Amino acid sequence: MRTLITLLTDFGTADGYVGQMKGVLLTLAPDADIVDITHDIAPQDIDAGRLALAHVWRRFPQGTIHLVIVDPGVGSARDGLVVASDGRFLVGPDNGVLSPALLVAGARVVGLPLSPAAAPTFHGRDVFAPAAAALARGEPLEGLGVEARQPIIRRTPEATRRADGGVDGEVIGVDRFGNAITNLIALRGGTVQIESRLIPIQRTYADVAIGAPVAVVGSTGFVEIAVRNGSAADALSLARGTRVTLRQRT
Amino acid sequence: MRTLITLLTDFGTADGYVGQMKGVLLTLAPDADIVDITHDIAPQDIDAGRLALAHVWRRFPQGTIHLVIVDPGVGSARDGLVVASDGRFLVGPDNGVLSPALLVAGARVVGLPLSPAAAPTFHGRDVFAPAAAALARGEPLEGLGVEARQPIIRRTPEATRRADGGVDGEVIGVDRFGNAITNLIALRGGTVQIESRLIPIQRTYADVAIGAPVAVVGSTGFVEIAVRNGSAADALSLARGTRVTLRQRT
Amino acid sequence: MRTLITLLTDFGTADGYVGQMKGVLLTLAPDADIVDITHDIAPQDIDAGRLALAHVWRRFPQGTIHLVIVDPGVGSARDGLVVASDGRFLVGPDNGVLSPALLVAGARVVGLPLSPAAAPTFHGRDVFAPAAAALARGEPLEGLGVEARQPIIRRTPEATRRADGGVDGEVIGVDRFGNAITNLIALRGGTVQIESRLIPIQRTYADVAIGAPVAVVGSTGFVEIAVRNGSAADALSLARGTRVTLRQRT
Repeated sequence: MRTLITLLTDFGTADGYVGQMKGVLLTLAPDADIVDITHDIAPQDIDAGRLALAHVWRRFPQGTIHLVIVDPGVGSARDGLVVASDGRFLVGPDNGVLSPALLVAGARVVGLPLSPAAAPTFHGRDVFAPAAAALARGEPLEGLGVEARQPIIRRTPEATRRADGGVDGEVIGVDRFGNAITNLIALRGGTVQIESRLIPIQRTYADVAIGAPVAVVGSTGFVEIAVRNGSAADALSLARGTRVTLRQRT
Repeated sequence: MRTLITLLTDFGTADGYVGQMKGVLLTLAPDADIVDITHDIAPQDIDAGRLALAHVWRRFPQGTIHLVIVDPGVGSARDGLVVASDGRFLVGPDNGVLSPALLVAGARVVGLPLSPAAAPTFHGRDVFAPAAAALARGEPLEGLGVEARQPIIRRTPEATRRADGGVDGEVIGVDRFGNAITNLIALRGGTVQIESRLIPIQRTYADVAIGAPVAVVGSTGFVEIAVRNGSAADALSLARGTRVTLRQRT
Repeated sequence: MRTLITLLTDFGTADGYVGQMKGVLLTLAPDADIVDITHDIAPQDIDAGRLALAHVWRRFPQGTIHLVIVDPGVGSARDGLVVASDGRFLVGPDNGVLSPALLVAGARVVGLPLSPAAAPTFHGRDVFAPAAAALARGEPLEGLGVEARQPIIRRTPEATRRADGGVDGEVIGVDRFGNAITNLIALRGGTVQIESRLIPIQRTYADVAIGAPVAVVGSTGFVEIAVRNGSAADALSLARGTRVTLRQRT
């Protein structure tokens, strides 16, 4: 039975920080298999890391250990967390990036003390990776820290219903292809309004001409705004936080 | 005997799409070893993916499964393909990106039906990765679909002989170092002409001064145009499609 | 007992060069496990590769083989090296990039002949990867070449003491977060001077307000200049080579 340790960070790879963590993991857990999720989360962008994790963590087999480090607060007075949730484990800072796993019923959480009075260290290498390796060697969660009762939770902003029946939402992320993922849920189709522009929700990108804007229900269940074979973010000036409104069929 | 599954995509890693596919692969084929080829193909650039695949796929051991997804047509009426060629397997969309393996004599090909009437899905995660995992578990090619008789083929444009004995070709790709790879084959040396500029074909980059342009027969067998310790693409304004002419020794 | 082969290059991944090397490694050493350190070293930046290697190589278990290719001199008259140092192995060009391992007492080094008269090849694929695979199969170092007596060494520039008691140093690298790593060592705290600006050395980034500059002793032991939750490189116009002076407490 192999043990998988995945890595999800904002470190990039060029500076060797990820390499150092891999070396520590493979030294302390010599039988583990390391899987890169990404090291290209925008620097210090907790919400981008949280969203990527949300899509990924439960796709892996039971027993997988996800090491997740997006940590603008390094060095400040916050602890680390080790989480057991839905059969997987997660290790990372207590800043909300682990929320997708923390919000599942039955999640167990312990805190990894990170004393701000200690010598400065690279927590990813010196604290988080060793904790992940300990899990990989079969050490129990409860041996790694004491129960954390109030871990920090960050949530995707919720869309809100308008008096006129529409739903106000926003763009929560833009992917590599320039698709804008919103927080709108459209079970019955409809139209997405961006300022005065109306974009009908179609079944698929290919339902419109090349270069035309289109809204679809994406693989995550949320409405996405795309331009067929182009970048909606560029063509429609969309970015995280852009306001969008769902006009549903009546 | 380990089973290797390689990944070659234009997804980047930051959005978690690749992570989702890795999770599915390791869930459905828990003993497989995943190898990243690249996720940095330019978005929707089928020909760049096809060229990278051409250089890579036969370097891997017999039995390797290459999962190749560069798919601007996602959601349109095209099928997926599963290919067995020269002892390796390949899975990806039927848009020409798999041509290097399809063009080998004896290749067997089946189609993966991707109904455009079905609910929108992330084909990489929901169709292609499960097919690759099935191959990894030892399922036969023929069990995954029905024979595909006319898969789409894309080819590198061929150079053409001129009346004056020269050969007209073009730049087919620019690599990270700014080297421009052409479709010229120069068995007897000669000179590459770009507009009015003449660049002699040398044995190696180091045969010219630092900063000077040079043409060499690259590791793929094609003529490449480089600038020693610099970027030929920048210095000589080269891009995919730039016309070049080979003037051979007479 | 698994055998790890790590890869540290400036190749990027999109062009397939790394994929070709992985295929060769897994063909010639079918039981090896490949670990990506990075392929994002800036093109031909030997010192950036050397620094990343310095932080990484001894973090891996004994027996690990590090394949390190940053090689602006490809094709020129330089050899390759195979190094055994502190229980790890390293393979790469003889241009200084392997210096962190060469400088350890007891390091053994053999040269891989790379004849400039031979046909042009992709040394990473055709020479260095096969050498790494041979080590992975258990071949002894001495079977791969003849002792290299004067491998090229590159060193991080050393800081120098000033007549007034200060120490003159420089920025030796800027990481993805915009932190500037210097060659200053500050055991007793003090202040970093950049032109007329004075930045006190604090224990951690979090000791200053968000957006404020701060100097800390980083995880490598060197003084780093950061901006809390921002980029010091951008805010303070820092780049490799920027002069800095340490003013120690008296």
